[in-house]
Amino acid sequence: MTEVQEKGRRAKQASYQLVSLTTEQKNEALAKIADQLIADAQKLIEANKKDLEMGKEKGLSNAILDRILLTSERIDGMAEGIRQVIDLKDPIGETLKAIEKENGLVIEKRTVPIGVVGMIYEARPNVTVDAAALTLKTGNAVLLRGSSSAKFSNIQLVESIHTALAKTDIPVDVVQLIENTSREAAKELFRLNAYLDVLIPRGGKQLIETVVQESTVPVIETGAGNCHIFIDETANEAMATEIVLNAKLQRPSVCNAAESLLIHKDWFENNGTGILHALQEKKVSIHADEETLAVFPDAQLATEEDWATEYLGGEISVKLVENVEEAIAHINQYGTRHSEAIITEDENNANRFLQSVDAAAVYHNASTRFTDGFEFGYGAEIGISTQKLHARGPMGLQALTSSKYFITGNGQIRK
Amino acid sequence: MTEVQEKGRRAKQASYQLVSLTTEQKNEALAKIADQLIADAQKLIEANKKDLEMGKEKGLSNAILDRILLTSERIDGMAEGIRQVIDLKDPIGETLKAIEKENGLVIEKRTVPIGVVGMIYEARPNVTVDAAALTLKTGNAVLLRGSSSAKFSNIQLVESIHTALAKTDIPVDVVQLIENTSREAAKELFRLNAYLDVLIPRGGKQLIETVVQESTVPVIETGAGNCHIFIDETANEAMATEIVLNAKLQRPSVCNAAESLLIHKDWFENNGTGILHALQEKKVSIHADEETLAVFPDAQLATEEDWATEYLGGEISVKLVENVEEAIAHINQYGTRHSEAIITEDENNANRFLQSVDAAAVYHNASTRFTDGFEFGYGAEIGISTQKLHARGPMGLQALTSSKYFITGNGQIRK
Repeated sequence: MTEVQEKGRRAKQASYQLVSLTTEQKNEALAKIADQLIADAQKLIEANKKDLEMGKEKGLSNAILDRILLTSERIDGMAEGIRQVIDLKDPIGETLKAIEKENGLVIEKRTVPIGVVGMIYEARPNVTVDAAALTLKTGNAVLLRGSSSAKFSNIQLVESIHTALAKTDIPVDVVQLIENTSREAAKELFRLNAYLDVLIPRGGKQLIETVVQESTVPVIETGAGNCHIFIDETANEAMATEIVLNAKLQRPSVCNAAESLLIHKDWFENNGTGILHALQEKKVSIHADEETLAVFPDAQLATEEDWATEYLGGEISVKLVENVEEAIAHINQYGTRHSEAIITEDENNANRFLQSVDAAAVYHNASTRFTDGFEFGYGAEIGISTQKLHARGPMGLQALTSSKYFITGNGQIRK
Repeated sequence: MTEVQEKGRRAKQASYQLVSLTTEQKNEALAKIADQLIADAQKLIEANKKDLEMGKEKGLSNAILDRILLTSERIDGMAEGIRQVIDLKDPIGETLKAIEKENGLVIEKRTVPIGVVGMIYEARPNVTVDAAALTLKTGNAVLLRGSSSAKFSNIQLVESIHTALAKTDIPVDVVQLIENTSREAAKELFRLNAYLDVLIPRGGKQLIETVVQESTVPVIETGAGNCHIFIDETANEAMATEIVLNAKLQRPSVCNAAESLLIHKDWFENNGTGILHALQEKKVSIHADEETLAVFPDAQLATEEDWATEYLGGEISVKLVENVEEAIAHINQYGTRHSEAIITEDENNANRFLQSVDAAAVYHNASTRFTDGFEFGYGAEIGISTQKLHARGPMGLQALTSSKYFITGNGQIRK
């Protein structure tokens, strides 16, 4: 048996013991994990140093090295994150529906854990702790597969988690780390249907696409956000400018940042190029269509590829459109079903846009940057789903639950 | 562009027009479809004859020919089925959650259609009508892929549906039938992520496994049911016998029929082989473990394969177990996560079984045959999901919905 199979099997076995845990037992274990991370801070920092040294040798960028870095502040932050999860309501065991049939049969639908959650992710070691805390809170076992660039950090983090779990009644096997970071091990994980109930990729577009293409385990697709802002004919200029600058620049590297600006022709004629100058002043390069270029030559001509690109940095594509219908069609063609906004004073156009744009979150007169589990009131975020099954948009604890029908009778048979 | 791509693209385009339909518009269209099927009964029966003739030439079994057969009673039944869907509550547009943030941002989560639903299925032409009605009611477009054995019937059914839709404001493109029944066309469907939001297979184990293995489109796995009944130490003999006979024999060809019987050793010692004789009297062949064979030699020795087999007919596997834990472990190893029952007078054992058995529906003192969308109060059934994401157990209209966040503001930006 390979490492992936063996750890999958053990996670599955252990998951059966999680279904009957009380909220108190789970919270106690979470508190012990938080304490252990603080107690093991020195070990964690030392393990992390090995990753950083290897990363430097391999020539990883400073941005990536910063993602890998653990400091005692960051470890405190992870422990604090776990304590926040303790405070969240336990979503397991809730009765979603209950009926009593004429024959006396009682049918109840209740929330239950999913079982074993697979997580495949890049760089950031804090995902290891996040995923372990959120899955434990929801009664799931987790099979973790981090990247080679954070290998030593991840091994030590899971060791600390195991040390904490060993002080509880919960089997340590509920949190498993696959140490083999080869492509072959990832492929095994994609096909581990016997033990895995769901696989959640967290990382860049490449990783997510590979998982969607290759996994036979059900996947929750997260992440990619080619988000648009459409400035309609009646948009207030100050509001439009402020929202566009915020959505593009407040944190350009994240999935809910804006990547493309659609402008109603008449608005552009009336309000001019001020908004584009404002972007340029903030060092944003503009990829514009020909019509925009004609009056704003200080930009590059946008290619077909630009319309589909998530820049995640100081670039934006700009296109003039005839009306709200053209904006909707463009977004439905090029968007990634994440977050899309219209700026308008026209309620009808706003409603048409919100109804017809196919995305997890649609905005009227607000920045796309709000799409986030904390902003949406979940107190935690497993990721942002851009698919339509199971969970859509920011995923809180609820997204890590399934349901089960409990039927009790006294001898009923089907006639 | 191939037929699959072209029809997928048209379904996707048409799906955008469905999101803003009212319940009345959808119900009116459904009523027109029901009327058209009745009006086209003669055409349907003639098209069906071609399928039956081809099926006889190919040597299809009488059971399969009966599944393909359309009669005027069956056409009335299909129309009646549509009228029942009209009476169901429209699940679209429901507000699932609404919050207002301190900054005045209003975040609402509402049910929306999934978009384009793919259905791949075998033999029965009534699935064509069922799927079209359920997807239309939920505002989804549908891409249908039936089997070659019902090709002419399916083509005529969709033609009748299109005739009816042409009398409404709804584009006929919302219901698409792929006429190419080749393996290559199926493979294209499995990878049609650009246009399909979900793929639902309905049919035998082989079909479902192929779809799960090969599809990159998210799948809802339905169907296979290797269902167990565990007779615990304290089970009432009359109740146990009645439930086992009902679960095995009331309709042996369906997924919620029992396939395996686990008996507590002490119960077997106290109550003897009466239950096995009762099964044999009803012509059920018994595949038993060695211990059972020792006192009931009139059975075959069960192989490892028997424990995992869904017979769907007059056979059952029988195994003696030490206790409820062994029964749970056996079911979690060999079951297909469908429907599992315990017969016991011991509440603790019942609770342990219901909690720990990993299945969509778990029963205490009742027949597994009740797992069904109509019995569970949904008024319709798209299938029975044996996976844990999105929907689990019998799926009603709700399973064909997704959700979307509608956020309205007056210029809010993220700080």
